[in-house]
Amino acid sequence: MPQSRRNFIQKSALAFAGTTSFPFIGKAAAFHTKNKTEYSLPIGIAGYTFAKFDLDQAIAMMKRLDIRYLSIKDIHLPINSNEDKIKEVLAKLAAANINPYTVGVIYMRSKQAVDDAFAYAKKVGVNMIVGVPTYDLLDYTEQKVKATNTKIAIHNHGPEDALYPGPADVYNRIKNRDARMGLCLDIGHATRAGANLEKAISDYKNRLYDLHIKDVTAASKEGKAIEIGRGVIDFKALIKALEKINYKGVCSVEFEKDMTDPMAGMAESIGFFRGMLACNS
Amino acid sequence: MPQSRRNFIQKSALAFAGTTSFPFIGKAAAFHTKNKTEYSLPIGIAGYTFAKFDLDQAIAMMKRLDIRYLSIKDIHLPINSNEDKIKEVLAKLAAANINPYTVGVIYMRSKQAVDDAFAYAKKVGVNMIVGVPTYDLLDYTEQKVKATNTKIAIHNHGPEDALYPGPADVYNRIKNRDARMGLCLDIGHATRAGANLEKAISDYKNRLYDLHIKDVTAASKEGKAIEIGRGVIDFKALIKALEKINYKGVCSVEFEKDMTDPMAGMAESIGFFRGMLACNS
Repeated sequence: MPQSRRNFIQKSALAFAGTTSFPFIGKAAAFHTKNKTEYSLPIGIAGYTFAKFDLDQAIAMMKRLDIRYLSIKDIHLPINSNEDKIKEVLAKLAAANINPYTVGVIYMRSKQAVDDAFAYAKKVGVNMIVGVPTYDLLDYTEQKVKATNTKIAIHNHGPEDALYPGPADVYNRIKNRDARMGLCLDIGHATRAGANLEKAISDYKNRLYDLHIKDVTAASKEGKAIEIGRGVIDFKALIKALEKINYKGVCSVEFEKDMTDPMAGMAESIGFFRGMLACNS
Repeated sequence: MPQSRRNFIQKSALAFAGTTSFPFIGKAAAFHTKNKTEYSLPIGIAGYTFAKFDLDQAIAMMKRLDIRYLSIKDIHLPINSNEDKIKEVLAKLAAANINPYTVGVIYMRSKQAVDDAFAYAKKVGVNMIVGVPTYDLLDYTEQKVKATNTKIAIHNHGPEDALYPGPADVYNRIKNRDARMGLCLDIGHATRAGANLEKAISDYKNRLYDLHIKDVTAASKEGKAIEIGRGVIDFKALIKALEKINYKGVCSVEFEKDMTDPMAGMAESIGFFRGMLACNS
């Protein structure tokens, strides 16, 4: 293991150990010196944003954007990767000062897929999976959560999603389960599904573990991805709601417009979100 | 003259005629429908940002960024252009819904250069020049301002500038002259020259006609261009100061980092500024 990676893991462990909130949420590991692009809410990127790029290209874009948190998508690190491949990817991220704070979105349609996802999370060294287990796998997923002490943040995917269109569809199925089962609130898809974001954040605050941050052109099925600030989402209200619940997770931007040439839109989106946070501070 | 250009000029004229503030400052012509990327302060781009690109490329980038105001730099429309060339450039801008609200920065080191600049402004159809006349040409420049009813906004260029390092160096030389002589406050160079931006905006409010918006890494000669929000300038305080004086001009972003590949940095900078304005609204 390279020294940088070892330091990263040690510091991450210290950071997680030091949190005073719900022990498995934790603020994403503060493994680097605070810089000018860090605000009250840490900004990350959901790996799907770079679906058209390989890991090296994704890292180069993240460095340019000065983003330090990544939700690793299987495109960049396949779920059944061997130890060498995982080490190689983690070393590249550590060298770029990028904290791979979670993995996903991982779709789980069989017990084997659930097993694979939790084994993958353990090998990658994250304490949370952003995933989508089918309803009939929720009992088994809960067993795995307990057995591995790994959180799962279930992702909502809008009106077209037969399982979890909005955050309520997630929450109602996990609210009486292990507290390590929660939500990855995708604010774009939630808006398209008719959810009130501020209410969802308030109502589900104890189970809100991750966020996919984006903007959409309409609060309906027809809503399309657009640069943050140009769409219908009220980011001022969103940030206020997150600060009110003292949200301890990452705000991972997921940009799904111009996917073959995302830098301009990503940069504008991240700039807008940073501007909002800076204004608010 | 193409119909679009004729409409543009007519609407511009109406917009300028309708301003109730100082008649020659005027809010930049509102010739298009208000959209989601317009806030309390209109955002433009200083043409020098696109020094490495031709006009068509510059327009394509502005459209992607949804920016509607341009300070035309001579790189994209040479000062001694003939009528056909000027018409061609104005038609391209009008087709892209871009308002060329001023020209500059134009350096003037001779009476001929002053004559050329004012003739150019008239031919382009703008009522303001962003320029840098030498001290000995200020009297002659003032005569031209009176004769042509065209404003001049003198630009400060930081500690290396022998004439106008900071805004005080401009203001002190124009404060007793015709009121149509004022400042284009370059906030990056002003910061590098040691100016207090909020104080400058307040003190020179009656002569503040244009802004070059950017960020710098240090409030000293060594300060370099950087994405807005990552540097030392307090944009929250800046926007507050501009709103306090009810600034009626354009905030033209001038991005001087990564000049051969400026889109990511431009987009981040504009996103940050928009996020600040949206938060503030």
